[in-house]
Amino acid sequence: MSVEDNKSGKESKKIYDRATKVLTGGVSRNTIFRKPHPFYVSTANGSYITDIDDCKRLDFANNMASLIHGHSHPKIVESVTNQLQKGSAFTMGSEIEVRYAELLNNRTRAFERIRFMNSGTEAVMTMIKAARVYTGKHKIAKAEGSYHGTYDYAEISQTSAPKNWGNINNPNPVPVVEETPDGILNDMIIFPYNDIERTLALLNQNANEIACVLIDLVPHRVGLIPASQEYIEAIYKWTRENNTVLAFDEVVTYRVNYGGAQENYNVDPDLTSLGKIIGGGFPIGALAGKAEIMKVLDPRESYIRHPHSGTFSANPISLTAGYTAMSLFDKQAVLELNKLTKTAIEQVEEAISLARIPACVTGAGSMFRIHFNNTKPTTYREAYQKKEMKIIINELLDYLFLKENIIMINTCACMFATTLNQQHVDRLSEALLNGFKIIKPKLIDIS
Amino acid sequence: MSVEDNKSGKESKKIYDRATKVLTGGVSRNTIFRKPHPFYVSTANGSYITDIDDCKRLDFANNMASLIHGHSHPKIVESVTNQLQKGSAFTMGSEIEVRYAELLNNRTRAFERIRFMNSGTEAVMTMIKAARVYTGKHKIAKAEGSYHGTYDYAEISQTSAPKNWGNINNPNPVPVVEETPDGILNDMIIFPYNDIERTLALLNQNANEIACVLIDLVPHRVGLIPASQEYIEAIYKWTRENNTVLAFDEVVTYRVNYGGAQENYNVDPDLTSLGKIIGGGFPIGALAGKAEIMKVLDPRESYIRHPHSGTFSANPISLTAGYTAMSLFDKQAVLELNKLTKTAIEQVEEAISLARIPACVTGAGSMFRIHFNNTKPTTYREAYQKKEMKIIINELLDYLFLKENIIMINTCACMFATTLNQQHVDRLSEALLNGFKIIKPKLIDIS
Repeated sequence: MSVEDNKSGKESKKIYDRATKVLTGGVSRNTIFRKPHPFYVSTANGSYITDIDDCKRLDFANNMASLIHGHSHPKIVESVTNQLQKGSAFTMGSEIEVRYAELLNNRTRAFERIRFMNSGTEAVMTMIKAARVYTGKHKIAKAEGSYHGTYDYAEISQTSAPKNWGNINNPNPVPVVEETPDGILNDMIIFPYNDIERTLALLNQNANEIACVLIDLVPHRVGLIPASQEYIEAIYKWTRENNTVLAFDEVVTYRVNYGGAQENYNVDPDLTSLGKIIGGGFPIGALAGKAEIMKVLDPRESYIRHPHSGTFSANPISLTAGYTAMSLFDKQAVLELNKLTKTAIEQVEEAISLARIPACVTGAGSMFRIHFNNTKPTTYREAYQKKEMKIIINELLDYLFLKENIIMINTCACMFATTLNQQHVDRLSEALLNGFKIIKPKLIDIS
Repeated sequence: MSVEDNKSGKESKKIYDRATKVLTGGVSRNTIFRKPHPFYVSTANGSYITDIDDCKRLDFANNMASLIHGHSHPKIVESVTNQLQKGSAFTMGSEIEVRYAELLNNRTRAFERIRFMNSGTEAVMTMIKAARVYTGKHKIAKAEGSYHGTYDYAEISQTSAPKNWGNINNPNPVPVVEETPDGILNDMIIFPYNDIERTLALLNQNANEIACVLIDLVPHRVGLIPASQEYIEAIYKWTRENNTVLAFDEVVTYRVNYGGAQENYNVDPDLTSLGKIIGGGFPIGALAGKAEIMKVLDPRESYIRHPHSGTFSANPISLTAGYTAMSLFDKQAVLELNKLTKTAIEQVEEAISLARIPACVTGAGSMFRIHFNNTKPTTYREAYQKKEMKIIINELLDYLFLKENIIMINTCACMFATTLNQQHVDRLSEALLNGFKIIKPKLIDIS
């Protein structure tokens, strides 16, 4: 793969021209949109994606962190192919839902009971509703800038910006979608991530009304900065004293350690949302946690406090793929993947140093994100990218995609898969060094 | 298949004993729960499901109406098996999303643009949010008793009962999940389905505040009663006069005609939610409708009014399966399936007549539901089943499942698939006649 290998994207452009006539903006996910047009996949294998113009790229996005074993892993393909012959969904149970629940509950200390659904968005929505039922309270506290899917409550302040975020001591609840009802905004408490004092002050101001504190331990959109041990312990302690559900969103971060990012902390959440990698590349979501709280969903009760179903929930295809993927992602695999990612981070830091640009790397486990600041951001407001910065980052990502045939996530992040090796990491750091040199003058201009 | 073929469910019981230790109530979907335990599938093919105790049953539920070609259809298995080798999800596009969007938009007049997502729940949530953005208004009007997934707004009054439904002239918004915030309840207008006068009066009372009228044209939970032509035209006219989005939920009913149930009406909706059969047995949802309204989701705009993404949205597995399924479900297939269902309804009506029980059948297209009243219900309140009636229906369904090896939906409904034939219909009507005779004394007791 060299710069010369890159093709024109001619066929992709043709498909996109058709797409704009039938799909809004030509896409179903804004994630895949890029100007002047998205690129379309022909085939993907391991860590490589070949587009329909026959250009092969090295993939560090892994479908937004959801493919822990890259593309078309032979064991996942085999297990799903077998299940396909036996059916994909029934109005009856499948043993795999029990086997997979056993596997996940054994993996993470805080999982006493689990329920599968279709997406991370559904998992977070169900988690928030369950917290309301269990506590009898309605307010939701979440971190400014953190992404938790598209349920109205969960998405508030995900895109907060200087013009609307307000005072750091009491950040505004900022809608993501226009015309979000005031009832939703009024139920939100937005706290500055990783800031113990301000977070506790905000929680205390609403002490009797908070159903759950929703938190991502390494929030990608906040800056991929791990929560400090003290921060999580302080929130945990507060939730114990105030009958509040501690709700972790591990949709992205479950990959960080064998039992999820939560394994790196001394305290357990009450509920955890899951998604992404636990589907083995297929649509999934799950809610796991304390039996006592999960009981609000129990259909054996004469009165079900939180009725919940879903046509494709726990379908045997997603669960077979997920079971296979997570069985392969055993303790050793987690260690090795995290070790490779650590090496990658070191090499990227070396490239930063060689290019002499103001940049640094944050991350945890098998994820990292590059920021174009000299010091690592510790809060969302520090990590916030101004428009001029976004333009430079897009230029870098375009260069990597079009000239170096490397796919990264649009925040300048990488989410590793077990199909990556040292050669791929060398390729990445070499390409990044080239890219850094190109954007360097512009970075200096805006600094 | 005779009564003797039925096995004990011994292995299913063993699995369920494990399930209760790891899954809340032992299930991930309340739909599959049955007392004393759910049954687990070994393999499913065509219209037959074999459970792990080797009992083979004839399936009229088709995973809650989602499998239009029954189980493991060879062409769907083949197309998905091929796609599996090429990858299941990417941070890039797939041509199939464009091809499938073209197919669906060509199928239904009102679909100018479409966007794929992961479930019917997500589709209805996105539809409601889009209606708010487009109209600048926040209230949602929906029919008492109708099911639209688990988004809080959409689920209000789905389980309304005599004790809480209030005056028919102004039905109460009744929460399904405990502790639903008042802000949500206050944004709901609940109207009595198929009642033009009362519905229009309620809409008029809130004329300036309604973002959308959410309606299912043949609502299963309301009684599987088709909306009258006049009713839909009256609502359509009202929405035109009041800047309100006419939002159809065709997640279940898209199977009713080639272009959905909406093809049977003279007016077009602004937006339509899809799911179930369009996934070919795999998780899916979609929102389709007027380009002008769908534009609120357009990522090409400098300011996106309704940002929306989703890790597994438009994944090529669900879309390949869906494309194959819907290509096979062509005009001829729709006609034949509806014809077979019509025959089935006639035979069930004959069985009702032979058994001399108070019962009748409602439905449309390839769906029908049996009610144990002499006259067809026309409203939710008429179709509402009291507790004693539910017990009798459960006894009938248990008899059919355990003794006749026939699977129906727990409302006493059938959702047909193209894999069913006249012999299957004969088997169904014969089994129902046997069942009707068994419950007859109890039906008479409570009447």
